[in-house]
Amino acid sequence: MTSFIELRSDNSAGVAPKIMAALAAANTGSALAYGGDEWTARLRDRVREVFEHPTAEVFPVVSGTAANALSLAALCPPWGSVLCHESAHVLRSECAATSMFSGGGAIRGVPGESYRLTPEALDEAFAATRWGDPHHSQPSVVSLTLPTDYGTIYSPVQVAAPTERARSRGLRAHVDGARIANALDVLGCSPAELTWRVGVDVLSLGATKNGALSTDAIVCFDPAVSEQLVYRVKRAGHVASKMRFQSVQLDAYLTDGRWLRLAHQANLTTAHLAAGLTRLGMELLVPPAVNMTFARVAREAAVRMEHAGLLFYGAGEGVIRLVTSFQTTEAEIDDALARIETALS
Amino acid sequence: MTSFIELRSDNSAGVAPKIMAALAAANTGSALAYGGDEWTARLRDRVREVFEHPTAEVFPVVSGTAANALSLAALCPPWGSVLCHESAHVLRSECAATSMFSGGGAIRGVPGESYRLTPEALDEAFAATRWGDPHHSQPSVVSLTLPTDYGTIYSPVQVAAPTERARSRGLRAHVDGARIANALDVLGCSPAELTWRVGVDVLSLGATKNGALSTDAIVCFDPAVSEQLVYRVKRAGHVASKMRFQSVQLDAYLTDGRWLRLAHQANLTTAHLAAGLTRLGMELLVPPAVNMTFARVAREAAVRMEHAGLLFYGAGEGVIRLVTSFQTTEAEIDDALARIETALS
Amino acid sequence: MTSFIELRSDNSAGVAPKIMAALAAANTGSALAYGGDEWTARLRDRVREVFEHPTAEVFPVVSGTAANALSLAALCPPWGSVLCHESAHVLRSECAATSMFSGGGAIRGVPGESYRLTPEALDEAFAATRWGDPHHSQPSVVSLTLPTDYGTIYSPVQVAAPTERARSRGLRAHVDGARIANALDVLGCSPAELTWRVGVDVLSLGATKNGALSTDAIVCFDPAVSEQLVYRVKRAGHVASKMRFQSVQLDAYLTDGRWLRLAHQANLTTAHLAAGLTRLGMELLVPPAVNMTFARVAREAAVRMEHAGLLFYGAGEGVIRLVTSFQTTEAEIDDALARIETALS
Amino acid sequence: MTSFIELRSDNSAGVAPKIMAALAAANTGSALAYGGDEWTARLRDRVREVFEHPTAEVFPVVSGTAANALSLAALCPPWGSVLCHESAHVLRSECAATSMFSGGGAIRGVPGESYRLTPEALDEAFAATRWGDPHHSQPSVVSLTLPTDYGTIYSPVQVAAPTERARSRGLRAHVDGARIANALDVLGCSPAELTWRVGVDVLSLGATKNGALSTDAIVCFDPAVSEQLVYRVKRAGHVASKMRFQSVQLDAYLTDGRWLRLAHQANLTTAHLAAGLTRLGMELLVPPAVNMTFARVAREAAVRMEHAGLLFYGAGEGVIRLVTSFQTTEAEIDDALARIETALS
Repeated sequence: MTSFIELRSDNSAGVAPKIMAALAAANTGSALAYGGDEWTARLRDRVREVFEHPTAEVFPVVSGTAANALSLAALCPPWGSVLCHESAHVLRSECAATSMFSGGGAIRGVPGESYRLTPEALDEAFAATRWGDPHHSQPSVVSLTLPTDYGTIYSPVQVAAPTERARSRGLRAHVDGARIANALDVLGCSPAELTWRVGVDVLSLGATKNGALSTDAIVCFDPAVSEQLVYRVKRAGHVASKMRFQSVQLDAYLTDGRWLRLAHQANLTTAHLAAGLTRLGMELLVPPAVNMTFARVAREAAVRMEHAGLLFYGAGEGVIRLVTSFQTTEAEIDDALARIETALS
Repeated sequence: MTSFIELRSDNSAGVAPKIMAALAAANTGSALAYGGDEWTARLRDRVREVFEHPTAEVFPVVSGTAANALSLAALCPPWGSVLCHESAHVLRSECAATSMFSGGGAIRGVPGESYRLTPEALDEAFAATRWGDPHHSQPSVVSLTLPTDYGTIYSPVQVAAPTERARSRGLRAHVDGARIANALDVLGCSPAELTWRVGVDVLSLGATKNGALSTDAIVCFDPAVSEQLVYRVKRAGHVASKMRFQSVQLDAYLTDGRWLRLAHQANLTTAHLAAGLTRLGMELLVPPAVNMTFARVAREAAVRMEHAGLLFYGAGEGVIRLVTSFQTTEAEIDDALARIETALS
Repeated sequence: MTSFIELRSDNSAGVAPKIMAALAAANTGSALAYGGDEWTARLRDRVREVFEHPTAEVFPVVSGTAANALSLAALCPPWGSVLCHESAHVLRSECAATSMFSGGGAIRGVPGESYRLTPEALDEAFAATRWGDPHHSQPSVVSLTLPTDYGTIYSPVQVAAPTERARSRGLRAHVDGARIANALDVLGCSPAELTWRVGVDVLSLGATKNGALSTDAIVCFDPAVSEQLVYRVKRAGHVASKMRFQSVQLDAYLTDGRWLRLAHQANLTTAHLAAGLTRLGMELLVPPAVNMTFARVAREAAVRMEHAGLLFYGAGEGVIRLVTSFQTTEAEIDDALARIETALS
Repeated sequence: MTSFIELRSDNSAGVAPKIMAALAAANTGSALAYGGDEWTARLRDRVREVFEHPTAEVFPVVSGTAANALSLAALCPPWGSVLCHESAHVLRSECAATSMFSGGGAIRGVPGESYRLTPEALDEAFAATRWGDPHHSQPSVVSLTLPTDYGTIYSPVQVAAPTERARSRGLRAHVDGARIANALDVLGCSPAELTWRVGVDVLSLGATKNGALSTDAIVCFDPAVSEQLVYRVKRAGHVASKMRFQSVQLDAYLTDGRWLRLAHQANLTTAHLAAGLTRLGMELLVPPAVNMTFARVAREAAVRMEHAGLLFYGAGEGVIRLVTSFQTTEAEIDDALARIETALS
């Protein structure tokens, strides 16, 4: 019987052992509910230290959709619009949660090379906007998916360009960082350099895809927005009563660079996979920057790969998506490549 | 140095060991995200078995507020109103989350003895309603808090009475069961007998207060409402990506009557506490049915109790609330009573 | 055959002749749509002159419900609450429109003598509020119905008292002035003295009940709120394309004190009616300040009054409501009193 | 001094004399408010007769945006999406009002020749949809703008094709008929043949652009949807208190084919204009089917036309839009053409 090799999503992975251990360790005695506990206080300090920001606030929430939609609702008035790349997760895969939480805000996708939101695309969108005309949703926030849903990333300079352009017209800036640790690992820059120092007001900080059990988070660099989020997060039902068990995951995640090391393993195995696929003559959509590979594969070959025990998703006609996680090993990738070689021959 | 005795809330407790063990056991291999995993399938079967209902669906969500607000939004049109007791949690402690998720539905508190919603109170509310007049929110759902926020409970007959009255006017019925296990333990009836067999369409099933780590749930007995909830829960950001870790908690919770045993311990220690307080001459607001005691205590005495290391909350002028959890021991209660005796003397 | 005497509502009246004439006069040539016309510009100037406020803005909308709900939504965050008297129209007769437009804001009724919101009632509400606790909707606006739904009024001092108390806790102030002209006529004060000079931020200016054809308005004294209203009013579909025909009604209404004269006639005929009813031995709920009378009448007598051709509404057990309008004449009231005398005998 | 010729919008026109006369005639005696009057009853009968539909209901509202957004909100669940042509008014010019009223529904534009929504475009949208996957807004309604914002129209067959395709996947169908009278005039079909007989559930019936003073309307052919609209329209503040004055406009508009005659004049003058422009060598974007002409004009020429007293709007780079109304005369068009000839030479 063939064993399976998991390449569907980093969401399919389990929980990092140190995070599980931290959870077990936190299960001691009693603690104030709803965030009035010492673990949550410690997490706040950790976030401020890791992001080098004295007033940053952190709000654990149970999903990336919640982090994105609540962040954007706090930045975008009901009559505003969020500008993002046309491939963005907030536009395509969150069932318009942002429109609901913002009271009817619009989400507008714009084109851009390598799936990135560029200042040029913003210029075009701004030029097409009738500013101040209430017949039209007013551009209010830019949202960058970093890494993008196609695994490309933004350097700090590439973040700064659209956020500056945005700020010049009064827009705020949000980053959907569901996999931001993977980008940080590659870029080698600090979390601050990829976020608030280049104009980002609020970050959706992914953790679940990279080893946490039940929590992502909003990291907010603007105290006025944080004040709103206190209420928005609560009435969305995202304030866990036993908050300490959400906070401790995030604290363990951010401690001693653990998030970066976990992401590094995912990035490394994807690099190994991509090199192997290229060697096998497979065409990649883009060179994978982080832990996602998009490859052109004929339908028949894809079916044979599935029969060989590879678990992966299609990503449109003739394209498959392969994702590694912190749990993926080099040995698994070697095994996968061997099976693919057989499947293709 | 004085040690503390935790009587603030069952939310302050930790995670039941068996649930922690189940979490650790689920952390093996990979699993499809967003509920496409075997743990979630098993949970659905478990819920159907425990509630003896062949088409019940279960939606893990991260808080009771989420469970309540999403359930009620699925049952109440935007122009409708939810009728509940004037002390209900959905009315007083959820920042109008139900109004947000329902698109502006109203929540109306009505009076009722022992904090219960009664058919008589519904009759009055119905009589005061201009049915079909669009100037007025139309009563659409009744919501029973069971146990109530003051620790009283409804028997199956007491549930049936208002839900029948509601149904006769076309209203649906919801139970906020944040502590329903505690009621089931006392009543000795089956989960079915306290819910769908007495007219309940949707149940907010509490688990966090009684030993889970990060999840409560919606249990829905009406397939048409379940279809809506699939979307409502997702766009509220309450579909955890690593759903298996939410599902496995609930499955362990409901297995082999564990939820009832955990609740039993909480109820037992409260009974012990209440007997002791009465012996000490303290007046109780209502005889505690489950794990909450409300006692009349002069401000000075309350302060002395705090100084003695008792952790508890005030509940209005001259009243304190003491709550036990599955973790509370008889020894702790004995200790608490001894300290109170000293404090009062 | 008996003729009818209209005392159901000032909403049942027609259009004041001068307003009809102004409409006909505006039907000349072409004009920019959506408010870019000269009539709308003139209306803005008129409002600034009449209210003696240099930056007031006016937004014609088609109903009082729209004026109230949009005003309150602009003043109240989604997690906020509107405090009003428990008899207020915004609470009881607008199908929670304010909750919808505000994204789920709460509307809270508080008691108060003579149907007025008092600083004492606010003090109690504030004392019961857990400020800054996201479990609870945060009091954000006070809304005064002036005149109240029971025809009582607030003097400038009685407006100032709750708005000051409100402002001291950071709340904004709104007046539902569906019949404010009737109050101004009685009080003899200026529009400014009853609104922004005593702390009112936004006024719902009623016109339809007092002679307009199809428009009420929002008058906003805070430029920052006005900026929001531009968008809120538009996306609620309340920007009439042929705005000139809404603006010209309001302009004619406010010109040369016409609104006050129209209201005076309604007030006068009610005073005449009330005196007559008292003479006939009928008990009034409150001495009518403006154009509404509430009288205690046994059911049988009420039926006889209806048979005599009087059109009026019940207002709860044993109480009837009689409302006059700008069209009501003294002769009609004499006729009504004669019929009532016969009916009661 | 040069006189102006109005070609900016049919919104710039005034009120048709017969409608003004009907308004004056309705200003007699008293009438029940909020639609309980005889004019509103008569309007309902008129709509049923004109549309040959025994259960159609009509809801006067103050704007086309209100008619569209409220109709679509009644047809589209919060997690649904509205599919329309990418040039549709509901997508581009209503500040996402539909998203607000629907509780966060999405509006999706799709391409299509001549600005029409086609079954082929729906097929593509349906193929790209993950049906039943709550990550994605579910297509729930199609909305056809008829005539389109570029003045093209749909024949009954062209309406039937997309509505059938829509119905086959469970979607409902809406027509934004802001200028539907203009289309009916050209097509020569009956109102029924262009709406419910070809699958349309709800129609936004434009009247303001074609001679009414302050009202458009929703015409609903599905009684279950009408039941919802009773509440949705009220809590949007679109139930005018003196409803008779809205209803009487619509009744006069629909009586004796008046709406078609008014539209005919607008269509006729545009045909005259278009023929003239073609004669002058001007390129038209599409041959005008109704009362709108889009012509390619160099910027300089456009400026000269403006200086010559023509009032019109730009419609993107190098394109101008000329719109006639029921008030436009042949003489005005002759004058306009003469001025344009001079301006271009």
